Amino acid sequence: MVFHFVNAEFMSAPKLSTEPYKGTRDFYPEDMFIQKYIFEIMRKTVEQYGYVEYDASILEETALYKAKSGSEIVDEQTYSFTDRGGRDITIRPEMTPTVARMVARKRKELAFPLRWYSIPNLFRYERPQRGRLREHWQLNVDVFGIESIDADVEAISVSYDIMKAFGAQDESFKIRLNNRKLINFLLHEYFKLNHEDAYKLSKLIDRKLKMKEEVFLEQSKEILGDRVQAFLDFLAAKTLDQLSPELQENDGIEQLRLLMEKLEKRNIKNVVFDPSLMRGFDYYTGPVFEVYDTSPTNNRSLFGGGRYDDLVGIFNVEKVPGIGFGMGDVTIRDYLETYELLPKYQSPTDLYICRLSADQSEFIEELSHTLRKNGLNVIADLSNRKLDSQIKSADKQGIPYIIVVGENEAKTKTFKLKNLQTRHEQEVTIENLPSIIKK
Amino acid sequence: MVFHFVNAEFMSAPKLSTEPYKGTRDFYPEDMFIQKYIFEIMRKTVEQYGYVEYDASILEETALYKAKSGSEIVDEQTYSFTDRGGRDITIRPEMTPTVARMVARKRKELAFPLRWYSIPNLFRYERPQRGRLREHWQLNVDVFGIESIDADVEAISVSYDIMKAFGAQDESFKIRLNNRKLINFLLHEYFKLNHEDAYKLSKLIDRKLKMKEEVFLEQSKEILGDRVQAFLDFLAAKTLDQLSPELQENDGIEQLRLLMEKLEKRNIKNVVFDPSLMRGFDYYTGPVFEVYDTSPTNNRSLFGGGRYDDLVGIFNVEKVPGIGFGMGDVTIRDYLETYELLPKYQSPTDLYICRLSADQSEFIEELSHTLRKNGLNVIADLSNRKLDSQIKSADKQGIPYIIVVGENEAKTKTFKLKNLQTRHEQEVTIENLPSIIKK
Repeated sequence: MVFHFVNAEFMSAPKLSTEPYKGTRDFYPEDMFIQKYIFEIMRKTVEQYGYVEYDASILEETALYKAKSGSEIVDEQTYSFTDRGGRDITIRPEMTPTVARMVARKRKELAFPLRWYSIPNLFRYERPQRGRLREHWQLNVDVFGIESIDADVEAISVSYDIMKAFGAQDESFKIRLNNRKLINFLLHEYFKLNHEDAYKLSKLIDRKLKMKEEVFLEQSKEILGDRVQAFLDFLAAKTLDQLSPELQENDGIEQLRLLMEKLEKRNIKNVVFDPSLMRGFDYYTGPVFEVYDTSPTNNRSLFGGGRYDDLVGIFNVEKVPGIGFGMGDVTIRDYLETYELLPKYQSPTDLYICRLSADQSEFIEELSHTLRKNGLNVIADLSNRKLDSQIKSADKQGIPYIIVVGENEAKTKTFKLKNLQTRHEQEVTIENLPSIIKK
Repeated sequence: MVFHFVNAEFMSAPKLSTEPYKGTRDFYPEDMFIQKYIFEIMRKTVEQYGYVEYDASILEETALYKAKSGSEIVDEQTYSFTDRGGRDITIRPEMTPTVARMVARKRKELAFPLRWYSIPNLFRYERPQRGRLREHWQLNVDVFGIESIDADVEAISVSYDIMKAFGAQDESFKIRLNNRKLINFLLHEYFKLNHEDAYKLSKLIDRKLKMKEEVFLEQSKEILGDRVQAFLDFLAAKTLDQLSPELQENDGIEQLRLLMEKLEKRNIKNVVFDPSLMRGFDYYTGPVFEVYDTSPTNNRSLFGGGRYDDLVGIFNVEKVPGIGFGMGDVTIRDYLETYELLPKYQSPTDLYICRLSADQSEFIEELSHTLRKNGLNVIADLSNRKLDSQIKSADKQGIPYIIVVGENEAKTKTFKLKNLQTRHEQEVTIENLPSIIKK
């Protein structure tokens, strides 16, 4: 008897769950197929604009997130812990601090402007719900080193092009625009608030949609007193022209007008001004935008971004103007599902070779070797199962073609190639098999 | 003056490091290019054999690793912590427990045999050194559901084919083979050790190369007494025939003979028997193998794997035979560097459009749009820098082609296409530009 000395340990183990950790997902091959499709569309589109891919570790020192604003995230929502060497580390909740760190680290060697993208996974500790999980992947697209509004136009164009590359119709999504410069003008010049009140009011705008109307109104009044009506009028504006005259002349408005004009020229017409759009992060300094789903059943933000002209500055180096956006896989997948835009699973394997008996093993090995050399992805069945279950297993895996190899096929080197979807059969040889399947 | 209310927070931040977390790497576009090349070769090769990609979260409940053997890893080398909800979680140190969990979770729906692969990142808390970092990526290739030795042959063939696809010469690497069944036979039948001593001796074999010879000898003697010479003879065997006659007849030897014969028939000839090969993990139950670098300056293990027939059993479900291997990116990159097999950086961007003045913006936008639609990856320079620095920035990014657009080009719609490497110039039109560049 051969005793496996490991078993004893296995047997004594308590019953283990087979579920993934809460708020995370397993990607079985069919899920992975969708994930890869989504990433491929993202990669292809951004590379058309000359963006190049970078990556970094999922672990960063916690100080990186504390230095940046939006401290709520570090305190309540991150996976932070101390490593065995006493370092405070955090599993990244977003990619922007990392990319800012990387740019600061090599700013003297890099060829600005940079057009960079990445598709990292990110972690946030929160109650899992539709569209929000603890782990998600997020396309991050950033330009560093361009002050001109043309970079903002490009970022929004890239966003729009990704949506179109997924097959989205213009009617199914809108692009909301706002400008932090306009908000800053409103807070500091128009309302002349002190820093604390200005910060409070900006956070209030950001949370507006998540609050009851009367609570929003009450808290606004606390800050603004009887000027609250002017604030509500501001938020109600549907176009730039509807803003009060005192708000019509400032950098922020100028930029928004130019931006909308340039997008219109690019034939991007589903753009709207939204004075209440903040996009959370404190680090934005200029135009911000958000792509949202117009479907009545799934009406919500899909993704967005904006300009941050000071971010690299947290490393005490010269300013580098930046603009970027992040597009999460969970929300976009929901969107594509809603509009039935997800592709059907296709196996990367072209051909499944069934064998009638182990006598044909050697021949099948040579055959598969030749076919692989000629560009086919081939599974050779190594089991001694009945033909029936071999075919079933090919079919269940979504493999399009099979051949069955018995004594006769090994001798004549001709096969019946069967398409499992159409049930069509045809005679093939080793020579013409690859070209027939690739058609 | 527009005041950015964020700045105050930035200014007060302490000086932040721009370095990545210890033992992890930043992947700048040039590094990412290499990483993507390595992953692409891996993917292409395994997909030729019909393997399909899966993935999972980097976080798992710690219980998953405790249940499995090799508890040293959980105790000393993992990143384990408690989440805010009191769950014990671990950043995965290896992928095998995860894939076993996934297989157990859907074992009733899956079409066995499974041929699965993944390229996850893994974390181990250890002192960073050449070839060993805290974070690395690892190709994991597994077959589930095939008992026949043909699956072992396939796993080794896939390993061999990946090496060849990287451009490796047969002389530059060897494949070491051993069998846990032979080791088990040696420990339990030949030496008739009790479980504790058997386990100790197996761990001793595994650490042999990391120990001083006299320490190894001393500890072996403690277990084996005067039978230690038979043990040393066993370890010294260079071929199966050199083993003592009592060790010649058992399942393990039979399998090894058959395996070597089948690999020989597949023209894989750099295979050697190595009686001291253990491959660490306790869960292996059959043949194990290891690919190692024969270079005198870098002589060490590159990667390996083996058969584990009981792993899914930790979830208290029926056994599923498995065989797999893991190939890390750090070691393989070192190997490719040693043999000068790494490709030179190539930008994914085809063309850089320089503009002489902002007057051409609109024309350039249309031009880039058309070229992108025709399959080119195009950067339109949005800066108002001098032509010189525009060209320099294209060159520094490794972009192969540029055109310069001024008033004249916008009018005639013909351009001088310049290859930045060869310095060759030619006249092109919007229509023939894509086909010329793609050549």
